[in-house]
Amino acid sequence: MAIKRKPSVEPFHAMDVLAAATRLRVQGHDVVSMAVGQPAHPAPRPALMAARKALEAGRIGYTDALGTGSLRAAIADHYQRTHGIRPDPARIAVTTGSSAGFNLAFLQLFSPGDHVAISRPGYPAYRNILAALGLKVVEIHVGPDTGNALTPDAIEAAEREGGFRISGVLIASPANPTGAVTSRAALSELDAWCHARDVAFISDEIYHGLTYAGGETTALEISDRAVIINSFSKYFCMTGWRIGWMVLPEDLVRPIECLAQSLYISAPELSQVAAEAALSAEAYMEMEAVREGYVKNRELLSRRLPELGLPLAAPMDGAFYAWCDVSRHSNDSMAFAREMLGAIHVAATPGRDFDPVEGSRFMRFSYAGSHAEMETALDRMQAWLCAR
Amino acid sequence: MAIKRKPSVEPFHAMDVLAAATRLRVQGHDVVSMAVGQPAHPAPRPALMAARKALEAGRIGYTDALGTGSLRAAIADHYQRTHGIRPDPARIAVTTGSSAGFNLAFLQLFSPGDHVAISRPGYPAYRNILAALGLKVVEIHVGPDTGNALTPDAIEAAEREGGFRISGVLIASPANPTGAVTSRAALSELDAWCHARDVAFISDEIYHGLTYAGGETTALEISDRAVIINSFSKYFCMTGWRIGWMVLPEDLVRPIECLAQSLYISAPELSQVAAEAALSAEAYMEMEAVREGYVKNRELLSRRLPELGLPLAAPMDGAFYAWCDVSRHSNDSMAFAREMLGAIHVAATPGRDFDPVEGSRFMRFSYAGSHAEMETALDRMQAWLCAR
Repeated sequence: MAIKRKPSVEPFHAMDVLAAATRLRVQGHDVVSMAVGQPAHPAPRPALMAARKALEAGRIGYTDALGTGSLRAAIADHYQRTHGIRPDPARIAVTTGSSAGFNLAFLQLFSPGDHVAISRPGYPAYRNILAALGLKVVEIHVGPDTGNALTPDAIEAAEREGGFRISGVLIASPANPTGAVTSRAALSELDAWCHARDVAFISDEIYHGLTYAGGETTALEISDRAVIINSFSKYFCMTGWRIGWMVLPEDLVRPIECLAQSLYISAPELSQVAAEAALSAEAYMEMEAVREGYVKNRELLSRRLPELGLPLAAPMDGAFYAWCDVSRHSNDSMAFAREMLGAIHVAATPGRDFDPVEGSRFMRFSYAGSHAEMETALDRMQAWLCAR
Repeated sequence: MAIKRKPSVEPFHAMDVLAAATRLRVQGHDVVSMAVGQPAHPAPRPALMAARKALEAGRIGYTDALGTGSLRAAIADHYQRTHGIRPDPARIAVTTGSSAGFNLAFLQLFSPGDHVAISRPGYPAYRNILAALGLKVVEIHVGPDTGNALTPDAIEAAEREGGFRISGVLIASPANPTGAVTSRAALSELDAWCHARDVAFISDEIYHGLTYAGGETTALEISDRAVIINSFSKYFCMTGWRIGWMVLPEDLVRPIECLAQSLYISAPELSQVAAEAALSAEAYMEMEAVREGYVKNRELLSRRLPELGLPLAAPMDGAFYAWCDVSRHSNDSMAFAREMLGAIHVAATPGRDFDPVEGSRFMRFSYAGSHAEMETALDRMQAWLCAR
């Protein structure tokens, strides 16, 4: 068949590692995965109960494209509870995971050829979705000098160097893979800079709730102009449910609704029912206990990974990732990841996903698994690296 | 805020009608919806049982981006059962509803500015997703003279008239909203024409299993070149689960996998578990009984709608829609739909969704609801139209 085939987007290597790990598991191997940002804990009990009840009631159907009214109201209440500010539920769009939020935001805010700034290292799906939509990805290196966060200065330098103007800025705090948390001051500065330049500002807050050193600020506290993207996947341990939300500036609600109607119809109804129940006092208590587990895992990894010759390259202030320098062991983290998975059945993600330029020096280790899994993985790595 | 806002895509009016119907229901009104293509029957019992069991087991996570191996194999078996041909499971991609299938296919096969041919009337999300991605939608009128199906002649005429070449052809059989079924000969002719011209051929088969006058052909029986899109939403009554699949030419599997990794991560796991159980002998029996219900509804509507001055404008050979001419009652089907919903709480979809040119003359009535609902709706319409 001679049909013109576009070059494919980059693979999301973490997903390829997941697929390889799945194959090993199917063969009966005991694989420990630190590859994907997926909590070992299941969805909160009230969410599971609500889903079960909905299954008994039977019919699971389409909902309104922006989600059920009761879930949108419960999400508004969630902001009241966590940040003392309640957005109008009409500004909330329930989405099929944060993945849908990114796609909808990019489609509505940008046109092919527009330049969008993201940080490097950063979440690879940003780059891949932007590229798939014909947008120009402007990856700006962030490091310890700016708290691993994007700054107006760095963006303006990229504009000068590239000879273009930015149409949008996307930041994540806490960030994947660095765990960096953007301060309130830095967030305010970026928001004001974007506003003054008519640049769209997208704030990815999917690791909110998982901060270990100081507070966390939602862009909602700063202004009503940011497009906020969030999800039940991380704090609420609901990855496979594919359920998230956006908080939108008022004038974007109807355009996003129209796009969502055709592109997604609606988020899965069972997941909406479960998500609503996840926003209950009982579930918050359960999730705080899960968070305590991450605190312990974080202590373990921040101590033992450097001992294994894998120094931390970023602060681990939030999310559940250790971003490590592997250059003492390998100058090709992709080969290192493959070798490690094959030899000791421990899966972690090569840095290339997150940093196309310097990623071969780095790896990301997720500590969203159980403490026992973390200990097993580290013990296996220790034995392997010593014998290597 | 002065950020450049793109014009929004057209609303999917059926979804707006659904939202209006939901508002009336919340107010306590007894709304009968013939607006959305949503079966009244729940998911098959084995699917509900499997989901329940998965909930008890707890953890619902990401799966491989193309879906679980067991579901992909079960879908291959489904073709063996229904059409006597078993595709390699490696060619099957599990998607978050057919919605994801369309988005993935369009992103991979076309570049902004490419022309894609669809039929008019047709499913509005085709037009809206294509437009959102910057593709040129070529809507070609289909009518009784060609069995309400696209033909190479009609496409070539559109190319001559427009002065462009088509990059892709998308057909649906059974079709929404007309219920038209494309014959095997017509499907072969289109596939061969596309192949000879290096034009991508996409076959939307989401209403397969719901044909009432003669057999149905999958593009898989004709060649391995078509991109086939299907879903558990219609025949298997699993709309709100957001679960579907594609059968891909071999060379498209990896590019589509890479796109899906970043754009969707994976389809909801609980829905994948349930969908696999829906492909069981017990579920097929249950679904065949549901289909018998549509047969009765179809008989009822095809008799009573014309009696109400709403003659059928298409054959109702498949799917679960009656496409009616409302011009005896109104020259604006959008106003007519709104009036009907307000007056008698019966929701149906204005033709504008399906046909931007002549849609104001038509309405689509879904008969996927229960027989009692159909009778209630028709009785209310009769009383209302007589008094009007």
